[in-house]
Amino acid sequence: MTIRPATAADADRIWSIFHAVVADGDTYTFLPDTPRADAIAYFLGPGIASWVIEDEGGVIGMYKLVPNRIGLGSHVANASFMVDPSAHGKGAGRAMGEHCLDEARRAGYTAMQFNFVVSTNTAGVALWKKLGFQIVGTLPKAFRHATLGDVDAYVMHRFL
Amino acid sequence: MTIRPATAADADRIWSIFHAVVADGDTYTFLPDTPRADAIAYFLGPGIASWVIEDEGGVIGMYKLVPNRIGLGSHVANASFMVDPSAHGKGAGRAMGEHCLDEARRAGYTAMQFNFVVSTNTAGVALWKKLGFQIVGTLPKAFRHATLGDVDAYVMHRFL
Repeated sequence: MTIRPATAADADRIWSIFHAVVADGDTYTFLPDTPRADAIAYFLGPGIASWVIEDEGGVIGMYKLVPNRIGLGSHVANASFMVDPSAHGKGAGRAMGEHCLDEARRAGYTAMQFNFVVSTNTAGVALWKKLGFQIVGTLPKAFRHATLGDVDAYVMHRFL
Repeated sequence: MTIRPATAADADRIWSIFHAVVADGDTYTFLPDTPRADAIAYFLGPGIASWVIEDEGGVIGMYKLVPNRIGLGSHVANASFMVDPSAHGKGAGRAMGEHCLDEARRAGYTAMQFNFVVSTNTAGVALWKKLGFQIVGTLPKAFRHATLGDVDAYVMHRFL
């Protein structure tokens, strides 16, 4: 698998993966019917640094790296990851996570924060813990899960 | 003091208060030189519900009430408050806080969350605790305070 900067030419695959990921309503707050333009803006909008991961068949996931806040909070990074559901188990999430931490250090961020990791996304929570993140906040019933009802979300953080 | 919906005619006072509040770099991540257009967009932009509080001399503060997240997280409200530094001690913050909780209930939100309360803003933290908020997260060194260096910020939450 290789990771490279995303370009406008990746828009179709990014949309396809985005749409598949949000369809289940179990990890992202995006509604299942989120339009293509919102998905493209989220990953390829102005000022957003994003990367894609490819295997021999093409792009199977993407991530973006942005300041978590403006101005006096912009030393903390935020990132967002999606992997094609049909490509789970290949380690794409972990590979992108490690790549993202390196890119964030290179960009001069001092920490990384995820604002909304759905607590029932156990694979995601476990991956971020493996990569050095801690749960620093619990948002009670903050996510309206498609099948489980209102469940907690975590704020996860690590210094770089 | 009275609280009423903000209108475009309040833009000058909103800008003046915004500019005074961010000048000290001790409570908001906005840089002290944040331009007027950003301030106006923050409080009076499309889809943003906002109110001003007035005393006999005119507007002394304002707040906005928005969904904290889109889609599957939009049942949780977020709000943001500013009081003219020259009007501190009159109870404007508390009055707006109580008004905001009522408006959030009326709008159907089930909880309210503040994502970034600077830990050294002791008056703010104390006010929100009095109004029923709890600290549900601590973001280490997340705020670059103008005089104190990097200090923690809190995530505060209450159900409605």
